[in-house]
Amino acid sequence: MKMGTGQLASLLASGFKGKVYPVHPTESSVLGLTAYPDIVSVPETPDLVVLVLPTDIVSRILDECGKAGVTAAVVVSGGFREIGGQGVAKEAELVEVARRHGITLVGPNCIGVSNFHIGLNTTYFPYDHEPGGITVISQSGTNSCHIYEYAKNHAIGLSHTVSVGNSALTDISDYLAYFADEPNTRAIALYIEGIADGRRFLEVAGNATRKKPVVALYVGGTGAGARAGMSHTGALAGDDALYDGMFRQAGVMRCYSMEELLDWTWALSLSPLPSGKRVCVLTNAGGPGASMADSCIREGMQVPVLSEALQSSLRAILPYTAATANPVDMTFLMDFNALYHEAPRILMESDEVDAVVMYCVFGANLFRTLMEALPGRIDYEMEKYFPFVMELLAKLAAMPQQYGKPLILSNFWGTQDNAPRFMAANGVPVYLTPERAVSAMAALCRRSDIVAGIP
Amino acid sequence: MKMGTGQLASLLASGFKGKVYPVHPTESSVLGLTAYPDIVSVPETPDLVVLVLPTDIVSRILDECGKAGVTAAVVVSGGFREIGGQGVAKEAELVEVARRHGITLVGPNCIGVSNFHIGLNTTYFPYDHEPGGITVISQSGTNSCHIYEYAKNHAIGLSHTVSVGNSALTDISDYLAYFADEPNTRAIALYIEGIADGRRFLEVAGNATRKKPVVALYVGGTGAGARAGMSHTGALAGDDALYDGMFRQAGVMRCYSMEELLDWTWALSLSPLPSGKRVCVLTNAGGPGASMADSCIREGMQVPVLSEALQSSLRAILPYTAATANPVDMTFLMDFNALYHEAPRILMESDEVDAVVMYCVFGANLFRTLMEALPGRIDYEMEKYFPFVMELLAKLAAMPQQYGKPLILSNFWGTQDNAPRFMAANGVPVYLTPERAVSAMAALCRRSDIVAGIP
Repeated sequence: MKMGTGQLASLLASGFKGKVYPVHPTESSVLGLTAYPDIVSVPETPDLVVLVLPTDIVSRILDECGKAGVTAAVVVSGGFREIGGQGVAKEAELVEVARRHGITLVGPNCIGVSNFHIGLNTTYFPYDHEPGGITVISQSGTNSCHIYEYAKNHAIGLSHTVSVGNSALTDISDYLAYFADEPNTRAIALYIEGIADGRRFLEVAGNATRKKPVVALYVGGTGAGARAGMSHTGALAGDDALYDGMFRQAGVMRCYSMEELLDWTWALSLSPLPSGKRVCVLTNAGGPGASMADSCIREGMQVPVLSEALQSSLRAILPYTAATANPVDMTFLMDFNALYHEAPRILMESDEVDAVVMYCVFGANLFRTLMEALPGRIDYEMEKYFPFVMELLAKLAAMPQQYGKPLILSNFWGTQDNAPRFMAANGVPVYLTPERAVSAMAALCRRSDIVAGIP
Repeated sequence: MKMGTGQLASLLASGFKGKVYPVHPTESSVLGLTAYPDIVSVPETPDLVVLVLPTDIVSRILDECGKAGVTAAVVVSGGFREIGGQGVAKEAELVEVARRHGITLVGPNCIGVSNFHIGLNTTYFPYDHEPGGITVISQSGTNSCHIYEYAKNHAIGLSHTVSVGNSALTDISDYLAYFADEPNTRAIALYIEGIADGRRFLEVAGNATRKKPVVALYVGGTGAGARAGMSHTGALAGDDALYDGMFRQAGVMRCYSMEELLDWTWALSLSPLPSGKRVCVLTNAGGPGASMADSCIREGMQVPVLSEALQSSLRAILPYTAATANPVDMTFLMDFNALYHEAPRILMESDEVDAVVMYCVFGANLFRTLMEALPGRIDYEMEKYFPFVMELLAKLAAMPQQYGKPLILSNFWGTQDNAPRFMAANGVPVYLTPERAVSAMAALCRRSDIVAGIP
């Protein structure tokens, strides 16, 4: 259960295909791999070293790495600036060693970096899910890697994660500048406790947001949050309004929770942006439709009454009990062609609608639960039925790119159900509650404003 | 896939132990049960009938039921007041029939009622989870029953659900009055599109909140939300500020999403109330600790710096890198006795602390994932280790009742992991993100204020 063992195990479990050399002072084998007593014994110069060592020997070992030609290091060990006193001097020494050898240093007091597109994961926690488009740059190691299972459970795909730790040599602005041009990164999530060089952040972030959406969770704006950051990474937090203004000026979207950070960047990493704020709420259930409509207005979007012509196209394919004004409530409809294909297509094609939020695309879970609970009593042929539905869902999933308009789904079952999971895997985000879907749509609208230069 | 079949299947799947008589005009057997052609052929008078019929014959069949001595009916069928025109007259006729026979009528245009303590579930959706303390009274059928799987996935226990539908004869106030005195109900969640008799609601809700916490999600306060409700259940929505004032006056806590509705009522159904707003943030990870501290302040609570005496008790059991001011950051600590038992106990015992939010109680999932990914390479003896941890967790779970103070957990893995699931099953709510845990704690604080008569 030691940190180093866990990190190595996680690296191996995440499918990294490159070579891995454990270095250990006494063991000849670690997790089945040949171990080496020191860096000079390793058969070749590694591209990256990860140091998980007692604080007092970190600088000496980094110096050995530098002499061996290493140019990049992640220092996981803590006990530096974040504890004050002697830790400050130890961190200065570490930086001096790194500078002397030209080593790019992540940390210290960090949990590592990940690039899921190549299976590189130097954190303690395995990532057992498809890579995606979200890159997380975090002043908390935990917030960069405890989220892997959360991401998997929500079908949210991550691209890279960086735990910057104490940012002794490289800080959040350096990573932001890098990932602004990194091709697999389509949205950037920042977790911030405090920014030392505000002027540089403003410049870098202003440049990054011209290329990609950036969302920030800043927790240092209250006394308690600032105290937490200080003891955690030694971050110097600042006035909340100051950060608010800085984010606004740089085009960074500010959120207030880890849920929003991942919900928003998920939609931003997948979806085309709306060209206006006219949202159509499409639903097969009244309550979630009403919730989504109400939330759209509270979030500053519009839910316009559809024209008579558009409503009459919808009425032609929907039951007489359906509502068509907007929300379009299809009611509990079992005509899957109307539900998943015709109704959304009519709306996506219309120039009255900039975006669609939809409840719900449901899959096989419900029927499976019933069939398992009542064996032999329900002879529902899922094998016959689902290929047909999946074909319709494939058409639905293609619509955002086809029409250049966002489609966001909501479904209480979540992506553990096969149909929502299919949609998520095919580029359409699915949120667990109606309000979260609307919140993500609002994030797309704000990003549209930022792109258009509207503050 | 018909509504009636689904509802019967779900009733059987949810473990209802009473007798069930399907009535069908032509089939002699439905889902393996003997079916009867009409209500008079049924061998005994049922306590409850559920009608899923074409709109035009509902009143006639209800009349037959009344003649057969039935006194309670759930009418699932739609096509009444919610569609306007002739539907209004049909609903009036239905009410007249019910009144004439003294039938308590739920609906029409509803999805049914549930009492999970006896396995009674008349909705389309099975409930495959332990019953709990939350009763949901909803003007949306979907919001009353699509949440069953969501509740299960989050380990949230439901007590009863009522889909009031068009509220032709019984409305949200009637159910609120009933559940205020129903013993298994410990918190009440309301989903509201519009209230017809505001004066009565005020009176009933004011009485109910003197006995139990009540949380309301009201979606009719915007134009779009009101339009949605009108087409859905014919609800007459009203000005948002008016409802806001009504809720406040009655001691009803207002929320703005389904997530908050369930998150808050979950904590309210399980936890003792805090006697003040001094929260201690306890964590083994800096980032979530900072998030929780920052959110506590934003939510109107305090995160006071602990006294030197209290900090020194904590330092005695924690590593030197730990922070003790508040947040108490235990760091990545593998001393489970300190982590799960000693540190929380010291805080719960202290008169400086009214409540504890804690990150994170983690279970076996991490190790299982690693062991499965690296077979034979990790020989971690979970069987040996977990009974010891579970014993500590049992002590932790007992603390809220022992000390009369709330403890709320957060953990990105969620209750699919064994340790968080154990905590939830033993009365301590566990939320997926730090901010949701704090939001639930804030709900407990607001409930404390309401109980104390603070508006």
